[in-house]
Amino acid sequence: MKFEVTILGSSSATPVFNRNPSAQLLNCNEKYYLIDCGEGTQQQLTKYNLKATRIDYIFISHLHGDHYFGLIGLLSSLHLNGRTKSMQIFGPKPLLEILEIQFKYSDTVLRYPIEFFPIEANESFKIFENSELTVKTIMLNHRIPTTGFLFEQKPRQRKLIKEKADEIPMAYYTALKKGIDVELPDGKIIKSEDYTTPADPPKSYAYCSDTMYDERYFSTIKDCDTLYHEATFLHELLDRANETHHTTALQAGEIANVVGAKKLLIGHFSSRYKTLQMLLEETQSVFENTELAIEGRTFQL
Amino acid sequence: MKFEVTILGSSSATPVFNRNPSAQLLNCNEKYYLIDCGEGTQQQLTKYNLKATRIDYIFISHLHGDHYFGLIGLLSSLHLNGRTKSMQIFGPKPLLEILEIQFKYSDTVLRYPIEFFPIEANESFKIFENSELTVKTIMLNHRIPTTGFLFEQKPRQRKLIKEKADEIPMAYYTALKKGIDVELPDGKIIKSEDYTTPADPPKSYAYCSDTMYDERYFSTIKDCDTLYHEATFLHELLDRANETHHTTALQAGEIANVVGAKKLLIGHFSSRYKTLQMLLEETQSVFENTELAIEGRTFQL
Repeated sequence: MKFEVTILGSSSATPVFNRNPSAQLLNCNEKYYLIDCGEGTQQQLTKYNLKATRIDYIFISHLHGDHYFGLIGLLSSLHLNGRTKSMQIFGPKPLLEILEIQFKYSDTVLRYPIEFFPIEANESFKIFENSELTVKTIMLNHRIPTTGFLFEQKPRQRKLIKEKADEIPMAYYTALKKGIDVELPDGKIIKSEDYTTPADPPKSYAYCSDTMYDERYFSTIKDCDTLYHEATFLHELLDRANETHHTTALQAGEIANVVGAKKLLIGHFSSRYKTLQMLLEETQSVFENTELAIEGRTFQL
Repeated sequence: MKFEVTILGSSSATPVFNRNPSAQLLNCNEKYYLIDCGEGTQQQLTKYNLKATRIDYIFISHLHGDHYFGLIGLLSSLHLNGRTKSMQIFGPKPLLEILEIQFKYSDTVLRYPIEFFPIEANESFKIFENSELTVKTIMLNHRIPTTGFLFEQKPRQRKLIKEKADEIPMAYYTALKKGIDVELPDGKIIKSEDYTTPADPPKSYAYCSDTMYDERYFSTIKDCDTLYHEATFLHELLDRANETHHTTALQAGEIANVVGAKKLLIGHFSSRYKTLQMLLEETQSVFENTELAIEGRTFQL
């Protein structure tokens, strides 16, 4: 089952050097989940051949413009292109007011419904669940109310051993995949463990958009498989990071260590850095399995 | 004196095929005037090496998103990059409300003042004037209140003939350039027409963003030197153009003829057209001096 994320924007605050503001597209079993939506996100989707029409869920971490200024344009384009299916949007409560005022003055009545779920940034809780994954908020520490998002796959079924499965009626497959032994009409006992292999373990992806180092959110992302964490500055600018409630590249690596993440992606780079190698090396000095979350890269989660 | 316009976006409604939504940068004597500001305009400015920091005046024709969704991002980036000088914005009254609500929820107090001038779309009037040009609104006929903008250079001074001017004191230059004859201390009469050549005639640029064919605005743009006019559809889609209050490529050419424009730029192309040659040829069939207003092109006005 596909579980991957494509980076659409890696820049903090302002777009620079072909780096776009924050946005990521999560593909979970061919369902699209958009995470943040900076200005130009719809153009980025086009650039990387990702169909915006397939997005059904949007998660906005906070109301700094580099994380949501592209949302109104994306929603408008979907309307103009004839969308009728609903869109679920999760974000800070005032986001709906911001969208509605712009639809009002453009005299736009959307052809599709928006189901808006306001996020209260007071404690971590589950905001979304379907048959494949759950999404929890991560209580970040930024200048305005901000939440990250923890995407967790649900436990999955055991996998049939194809060659062996041909021997028995298909009606028994569901039970076997659930780990249940079955009895055939002739009395023969079919053991699940003989006909299936264990399920892939469910994976998790933690998205920490904008935050300063703060141990209070570490428990929520403990043992995550892949951690995306902002790393706006080099550690020599720690004072600036604290002042603006951001994280340094070194701190991002330390956080990955402390929470026991298996892999780390860093992003949200300050426009002062024309190249990113120094940020990567600083993080890797404490957490080796780190990659740059830059535009157009897709990571298997 | 420089008087030129660079096209930043040529697409209607939604960004497609590397065509961005509407935005143009007018350079009048090295002062920058931004006309409309679709999503991604700040990225387009960067792409074409045009410094956003040099923009002091912004004109927004109407509140359909493809003409202003990039404004909040541009203004935010200027703030983050340390701008302190004021910005004058001319546009429909609710635009200020839309900007303010977004600054409010991002907890942004701009470091520079915005001087907002609401435009009432009821009749054509002068909304701006400085030493170099005046700007008048053009009453367009679109689905929501919409104005175009007529940029007219002011009459300029006669030009000194350098070799001859060396003979006389500089104190007399101002009068001569204004066409006034002067008397030197020795009684000699210096005729302006002997020491200067006529000024370049003032030029005008009419920007008609979104409108259907409507003779009522033709008087405002009569005899303009360069007319930018939307040409969303081929004429075979006239019904669709009327229904959506847009213009066909053929009609744009007819308008240029009727108002006596010297040159025509067409833009705001529907996303249904992957290439634009047919639109250009249709317009040129009635008005030959037409060019496509496409991204990155700069036109001397």
